[in-house]
Order: sequence, then C-alpha cells, then structure tokens
Amino acid sequence: MIEPPAVAVIFFSIRRCAEDDGYEEMPEKMLALAEKAEGYLGIHSVRDPVTGQGITVSYWSDEASASSFKQLETHVAAQLNGRKSWYSRYEVMVATLERSYEFTNQAL
Amino acid sequence: MIEPPAVAVIFFSIRRCAEDDGYEEMPEKMLALAEKAEGYLGIHSVRDPVTGQGITVSYWSDEASASSFKQLETHVAAQLNGRKSWYSRYEVMVATLERSYEFTNQAL
Repeated sequence: MIEPPAVAVIFFSIRRCAEDDGYEEMPEKMLALAEKAEGYLGIHSVRDPVTGQGITVSYWSDEASASSFKQLETHVAAQLNGRKSWYSRYEVMVATLERSYEFTNQAL
Repeated sequence: MIEPPAVAVIFFSIRRCAEDDGYEEMPEKMLALAEKAEGYLGIHSVRDPVTGQGITVSYWSDEASASSFKQLETHVAAQLNGRKSWYSRYEVMVATLERSYEFTNQAL
C-alpha cells in the first residue's frame, strides 16, 4: 500500500478498436521504465479488454518525479503513439495523497 | 473530466473467486447511491474479469462529501460484504486533485 507523502497520477483511457498497433508491449515497457525512475513508489493498473477502458494509477514521491517520468524520451514517444493510434480518449488527474488504508482477508 | 477543487478516492480491489455472492448488483447500486449524494462529481471504474482486479476512482467536491458517502448505511453494508465475501484484498487512497487534462481523438 502506498502511504503519504506521495503524488498519484490517475490515467483513465479508452482504447481504440485497433489491431496490431504496437500497443501490446507498451504497458510492460512503461512499467520497466517507471521502476528504474527516481521517485517511483508503485502502480495499480487495470484494463477491461471488453470495454477497452483502463485505469492506471502510478505513485511518485513528489511532483518533480512524476513530471520527470512524463518527460522521458521513451515515455514521450509512447504518448505520441497514444494520441495517434491507441486511444480514442484519455484523462489525466494529478493528485496529492492524503491518507490510505488497506484490507487483506486473513481467512483466505 | 474532473477539475480541481476535488478529492479523489482511489479504490483498488481484488475479487475472490466466489460465485453468487451478491456482488453483481453492487456496482450499479453504489453508483446510484453516489449520484444522489451531496458533493459527488463523477467516477472512473474498471474491472478486469480475468484477473479479478478492479480500480474505481470516485471524485468528490471535498473530503466531507467523500466521508459522508463512506458512512451511508447502504454503503456500510456493502463494505461489510466486501470484507466478508467479495474481496481478498483492497486498498483505499484518498487524494487531493491538483490538476487535470484530457485528450480526445477528433479524427474518430
């Protein structure tokens, strides 16, 4: 679980119904890039293949780390492909984490 | 798109592989409840039926609205079912929205 202080970057996207557009390898590449980046704290990422909707929340130690990741060359290239080919729409919300809590079913 | 000022409640959850546990109607019921609640601004919600992972981000005008929604009787009952039956794990992150932007492919 991610705890403050942290910045959450919420990325909501809708995939186009395109095939073979180079999207498939992207999430793994971006994750590898993020994991090496300064200030990276973690990620939650889910996509529903049926609706094409996805949410990725990445967590960073501060705004500067989140902004640096946005400007990495490989990430900028992915953003261009995102606008050109992969997404019909996306929204980005940048937020400061205030508090967090978690639950794990210990009976399982 | 949601713009500041707003509070984002990020709910990441992992479903148990249970069947017929009353979960199916819950998302719709909670959405209807939220839409009637004071300070509700919007929602992004995605679940991958294969992995069982889901992210729901609900947006509120302030912390008080988000807290009030958490305490509604119907929502409290859902939380109990969530811990008892629906989820093996969940995490909740409460964050203050700082900025947001969006992209729509106009060519489509």
